[in-house]
Amino acid sequence: MSATPNATTAQSDHQGLESNGEVRLFEVGPRDGLQNESVRVPTDAKIDMIERLVDAGVRDIEIGSFVHPKWVPQMADTARVAAGIRRVPGVRYWALVPNMKGLEFALKAELSHVAVFLSSSESHNLKNLNRSISQSLEIVGEVIAEAVSQGLTVRGYISTSFGCPYEGDVPFDNVMRIAHTLTQRGCRYISLGDTTGMGTPLQIRKGCRRAVEELGVDHVALHLHDTRGLGLVNALQALEVGMRNFDASVGGMGGCPYAPGAAGNLGTEDLLYLLESLGYETGVDLERIVAISRDLQLDHGVTLSSKYYQYAGARL
Amino acid sequence: MSATPNATTAQSDHQGLESNGEVRLFEVGPRDGLQNESVRVPTDAKIDMIERLVDAGVRDIEIGSFVHPKWVPQMADTARVAAGIRRVPGVRYWALVPNMKGLEFALKAELSHVAVFLSSSESHNLKNLNRSISQSLEIVGEVIAEAVSQGLTVRGYISTSFGCPYEGDVPFDNVMRIAHTLTQRGCRYISLGDTTGMGTPLQIRKGCRRAVEELGVDHVALHLHDTRGLGLVNALQALEVGMRNFDASVGGMGGCPYAPGAAGNLGTEDLLYLLESLGYETGVDLERIVAISRDLQLDHGVTLSSKYYQYAGARL
Repeated sequence: MSATPNATTAQSDHQGLESNGEVRLFEVGPRDGLQNESVRVPTDAKIDMIERLVDAGVRDIEIGSFVHPKWVPQMADTARVAAGIRRVPGVRYWALVPNMKGLEFALKAELSHVAVFLSSSESHNLKNLNRSISQSLEIVGEVIAEAVSQGLTVRGYISTSFGCPYEGDVPFDNVMRIAHTLTQRGCRYISLGDTTGMGTPLQIRKGCRRAVEELGVDHVALHLHDTRGLGLVNALQALEVGMRNFDASVGGMGGCPYAPGAAGNLGTEDLLYLLESLGYETGVDLERIVAISRDLQLDHGVTLSSKYYQYAGARL
Repeated sequence: MSATPNATTAQSDHQGLESNGEVRLFEVGPRDGLQNESVRVPTDAKIDMIERLVDAGVRDIEIGSFVHPKWVPQMADTARVAAGIRRVPGVRYWALVPNMKGLEFALKAELSHVAVFLSSSESHNLKNLNRSISQSLEIVGEVIAEAVSQGLTVRGYISTSFGCPYEGDVPFDNVMRIAHTLTQRGCRYISLGDTTGMGTPLQIRKGCRRAVEELGVDHVALHLHDTRGLGLVNALQALEVGMRNFDASVGGMGGCPYAPGAAGNLGTEDLLYLLESLGYETGVDLERIVAISRDLQLDHGVTLSSKYYQYAGARL
C-alpha cells in the first residue's frame, strides 16, 4: 500500500511540486470548526452549510459530534442536523462518537460513518478525556468493534501526533502503535492530528512518510492546525512524501478548547489554493467554498482565519 | 557564486529542510509596511520601532523612502527618521529613492544605502511609475551610477517578478534582463518582488534557482507577499534552491497601493518561525519582534497579518 506516484519521483528536482493526480479533502468545518466557535450557528444554517459544501464538491464531511452537550454545547443538535440534510449518494457524512452512547446516537441518526478519537500524549488525553490512553484504547476499541459489526465505517483521530502542549515531543512510535491498534480493531482510516500546530516541517515529513508506508496511502490523513502559520508548509511536506488525504475546515474555523493556543484548523480555502497552484485535483470548487465562508461570517459572525479567504472573501 | 550548501544536498531526502547555516533578513516594515497603513505612525514611534528592530538583531533595515509626500504621505518624515535614529555599527540603514531628487535627500540624510525600484511588467510600471520600463531603467540607471560614484551601496527592487495583477504571467527572462541591466550599472543587490503574492511554488522555485545561479547567492533576495497564504511555502521553495536573503515586514504589515489585492508583506515573525523550525540562524530574536509588533498594534492600531504574531502576540 505504500507505493505512491510521488515515491517514484522523490529524487527529482521538483519533488512533490508537480501534480500527481488527486488529493482527497475531508471537511471538518461543521464539527471541528463550529464546535470551537463562541457564536452559535443555528441548526438550519448548519444544514445549509453542509449541503452547500457538498454542492461545492466535498465528498467527506464531518457533520457533527455525539459528545455530551454539557461538554460541547455547539454540537447538541447533531441528530437534527443529520435528520435535516439531503443525503447525496457518494458523499460520506461522518459524526464524531466518543463512546458507545455516541455510537447509538449515530446509528439512530442513520449515519454509516463515525469517527473515534484519542490522544497520543497521556497528559492531553487526560485533560481532554479524563482517562489514560490505555483506558481510551479499550473504550474506543469496543466502539470500533461494535460499529464495524453494525456495518459502519470508522475513522480514528490521533490527537497531538506531532507534539503536545503539555508534554512537548510525542514519540512517533507511540502514535504508530496507537494507529496499528485502532486498525487491528477494525478502524479503516487514521487521521494524524497536529492538534496545536506544533509540528515542524521535518517532523511532519518523517511522520507522514512512515504513516503512509505502514498504513497505506488510502488509509491515513493529515489533520493540520495553522496555529503558528506553518499549516501549508507542513501540508506540502506531507504531499511530497505521498500523503493524499487532508482534513481542513471551511474558512479556517476552529481549534481545540482543551489545548492552549490551538487556534485555527487549516483552512479549506488555503489547502485548496495550494493544491490548485500545484495542479492537484480535488473536485472541490474553491470559489464556492469562499462564498460559503463569507456567508457564515456575515450571517453568524464566525471567526475565519484562512488567508486565502481573507483575500478572496473581500472581493466577492 | 552559485554554489550554496543546499545545492550539494539537493537530491537528499530532506532537501532544504535541514539547516544549512545562515539566512539574512532584510526588514522592510518601517517602509513597505508603514507606507501602506491607513493609520499614521508618528516620527518618534518610527524611530523607536527601528531602534528596537535593530536591538532585536536586524542588520538590514529600510527606514523610509524619499518619494514625493504627495504620493506617499506616510513617508514624508523619512529625513527626520534618518536624523533621529541612533546608528549602530554593522547595521545597514536603507532608504527607497525613486529618482535623482530622492538620492539627494538620502545623501543629505547621511544614508549610505539606497534602494531603487521598477516593475518587470509594463502595465504595472506604468500604473506605479507613470512611465515605460525602458524609461525607468534609464532614470534608475542614472541614480545607481550617481549613488555608486558617491560611495553608496544600491539595492534594486524588481516588482511583479512572479506575476502582474494586470498582465498575468511575466516572463522570467524579462526579470533577469532587468536584473542584469541594474547590476551592470552598479547595483549590488537585487530583490525579486512577488508584489501581489501571485507566485506559485514551482514558479518561485524555478525563478529563484536561476536568480541565485546568475546573480550569486549574496546578491539576490526574495521579497514575498503573503496575499493568498503561500508566503511561507514559497519561502521554503526559495530556501531549497539556495536563496539566503529574504525581505519581510514586522507583523506582516503592508502591501502595495498600486496593485489590487496586494495586502500584506510576508511577516517577519512568520519567516523567522519557519527558519527556526528548520534550524537556520538569522541572529534575530523572534520574541522581541513579536513584542515590537504588539506595541505597534496597541499604540497605533496598525494591521498585523502575521499568523505567528496572531498566535504569540496574544500570549505576551
